[in-house]
Amino acid sequence: MSKFFSDSGSKLVGQEMFKVLDRAKELERLGNEVIHLELGQPRFDPPVDLIPSTIRSLSNKNVGYCSSYGLYSLREKILNKNIKINSNLTIDNILISTANLLISQILHLCCNQNDKVVVFSPTFPTYIASACFFNIELIQIPLSLNNKFQLTKNDIDKAIKFNPKMIIINSANNPTGAVYDEDVLRYLNDLSIKNNIWILSDETYAQIAYHKNFYSTLNFENKNLITISSFSKVYSIPGFRVGYVIANNDVIDKLALSCSTLISCLPIFTQEGIERVIENDEIYIQKMNKNLLDIITDVVNLFEESILLKSQYTSPQSAYYMFLNISQTGLNDIEFCNELLNKFYVACTPGSSFGDHFNSYVRLSLCGNYEAVTDGVKRIINFIETFKKI
Amino acid sequence: MSKFFSDSGSKLVGQEMFKVLDRAKELERLGNEVIHLELGQPRFDPPVDLIPSTIRSLSNKNVGYCSSYGLYSLREKILNKNIKINSNLTIDNILISTANLLISQILHLCCNQNDKVVVFSPTFPTYIASACFFNIELIQIPLSLNNKFQLTKNDIDKAIKFNPKMIIINSANNPTGAVYDEDVLRYLNDLSIKNNIWILSDETYAQIAYHKNFYSTLNFENKNLITISSFSKVYSIPGFRVGYVIANNDVIDKLALSCSTLISCLPIFTQEGIERVIENDEIYIQKMNKNLLDIITDVVNLFEESILLKSQYTSPQSAYYMFLNISQTGLNDIEFCNELLNKFYVACTPGSSFGDHFNSYVRLSLCGNYEAVTDGVKRIINFIETFKKI
Repeated sequence: MSKFFSDSGSKLVGQEMFKVLDRAKELERLGNEVIHLELGQPRFDPPVDLIPSTIRSLSNKNVGYCSSYGLYSLREKILNKNIKINSNLTIDNILISTANLLISQILHLCCNQNDKVVVFSPTFPTYIASACFFNIELIQIPLSLNNKFQLTKNDIDKAIKFNPKMIIINSANNPTGAVYDEDVLRYLNDLSIKNNIWILSDETYAQIAYHKNFYSTLNFENKNLITISSFSKVYSIPGFRVGYVIANNDVIDKLALSCSTLISCLPIFTQEGIERVIENDEIYIQKMNKNLLDIITDVVNLFEESILLKSQYTSPQSAYYMFLNISQTGLNDIEFCNELLNKFYVACTPGSSFGDHFNSYVRLSLCGNYEAVTDGVKRIINFIETFKKI
Repeated sequence: MSKFFSDSGSKLVGQEMFKVLDRAKELERLGNEVIHLELGQPRFDPPVDLIPSTIRSLSNKNVGYCSSYGLYSLREKILNKNIKINSNLTIDNILISTANLLISQILHLCCNQNDKVVVFSPTFPTYIASACFFNIELIQIPLSLNNKFQLTKNDIDKAIKFNPKMIIINSANNPTGAVYDEDVLRYLNDLSIKNNIWILSDETYAQIAYHKNFYSTLNFENKNLITISSFSKVYSIPGFRVGYVIANNDVIDKLALSCSTLISCLPIFTQEGIERVIENDEIYIQKMNKNLLDIITDVVNLFEESILLKSQYTSPQSAYYMFLNISQTGLNDIEFCNELLNKFYVACTPGSSFGDHFNSYVRLSLCGNYEAVTDGVKRIINFIETFKKI
């Protein structure tokens, strides 16, 4: 049967990480309580007006088609927010779509099958899956835990040598929590202009930053620059499936055609719900960041107390993930995740989901409630400590 | 700039039909009232429990991720409905996604760039746009007004001669309203099995049928058959963006991976809203069909009274579109639409949006309210009558 699928259809294969998830669900069905540190699903309530205003829009029967560019009034509000970063932006630079889909739409728009795209790994799995979906050659340049997974000018030089059509960056980063330096981003931007290379800059976690100020690529003037973001994480509404892209208006017009082909449009009511809160989200975001920082600080303290783990992770500067080196256990990532789940009932994500070079890492997601996350981390430390005697 | 896009990105170009729409909007901004016969957006209220149950789900904060297969409980209810047609179906044969996106997902899954896909035209524009999106060769076999745009065994023989990887059919049909005969569908199905050709059967309008019983491809046992449908039209909720696919479980598993790459998942609350009404939708659908039939009957009566139009259309057996031959005006479809809009303030869709052979046709959408639709149709008849003297 599978030989009968297209080449790229045949390449769609399940990932090992889903087998870990399936096993976690099976354990729960059998009556066990599992601590979920594998999901990037925030557990906070959305901003207080968001759901009521979505409900109001539904009550007004806003259940028809919307523009392929997204709701005009929401685009305006996204503009008002981002014009503070770059005063040259206009509404023609903004389109609303699902952020996950935008990754595929942008790869399709910019890259042919023979083109090369560079990511710096560990990296968000959708970049890898989406490049595979379109048969685009993806080059993974690994960053190093020793350098706190920071992007350097040297890494960018390496990327340019591949003569890529596009370079994808993700600051603030999932899964490492790294926030990239302004001068490194500027170096990349200059080379993108000079060498005519697309930059896809994913800033989904821009507003969740703790120890370092986030620097946005929106500061740059560059027709080759495409910046995406999402409301999923910052408003704790991943199920709304609403994100946006900011780019040159030629790119935006093409992406509107891409939207009209693929999905026609997004619902109106989800966009109206978001529109209502976007102008007054500062306090909500501050509170969320404080909550997350409390969890992260205590998790870091737990790791610092463990001799085996002390230097095997970096404290996240943003977002809510930790990328943990587990090579001292002698297990690979899949074995580690399975044993941790079976013996300690904690689920986390194998590192190889984030790139080819990371099968001695796992990702922990710290966005659950305080007790569950710290309990889960303590179990992980206990699990790893059992390897000390070996 | 555009040379810098990918080949398929460069091919994304705006359609003439959107220029008609833009002009309609401009006329409205200038204070004119425009009758919209160009949109396939139903104007009925959704089933009475649908919006309240969506609101209930939102109130319960169901704003997290869902399975890439769709909500299990909605898949069960879709199964219960369709198992009456085919008792061999199981939940593993069902996946929920946006119906529009499913067209692209299925083309991507089944067809390589060199493969041929056949459609019978006039045809739903997304099949054309989506094949173009993936650089797949689309062959359009035109059906004939003289034969009421019915699909025949002869048309299927023609299609098979192209040695296609896939044949797309759409019964009940947009834009012609044709419902295909059981024996023709069976003939196609037998040849699909014999020659190992995928069938994509789009049954979006299956439940909106008047003069002829709809026959579903779900009656067939065929691993090469993929049947899609949508809740947009039947529940008057196009803005919900929820549809589904029924197919062999190998296909379903691949499409779940495709969903997880492209969109992760759909919202939970839209699916829970639909789930609430699916078991008791008969009276709603009967009422909607009666309403539509009242409009269509009177529109047909108006056309029958016009000597110029009498034989230039077919009375729809289903859905709510009419595909009208306007060649007697001497105008092409774009000219016709523009003049009709500028002089009579009625918007309709140029026929060339539905295939290469139809630039002497326009599509009328009759799903608006009775007064607007019949008024619009009278204006069209008046407009066409002005060409009698020439």
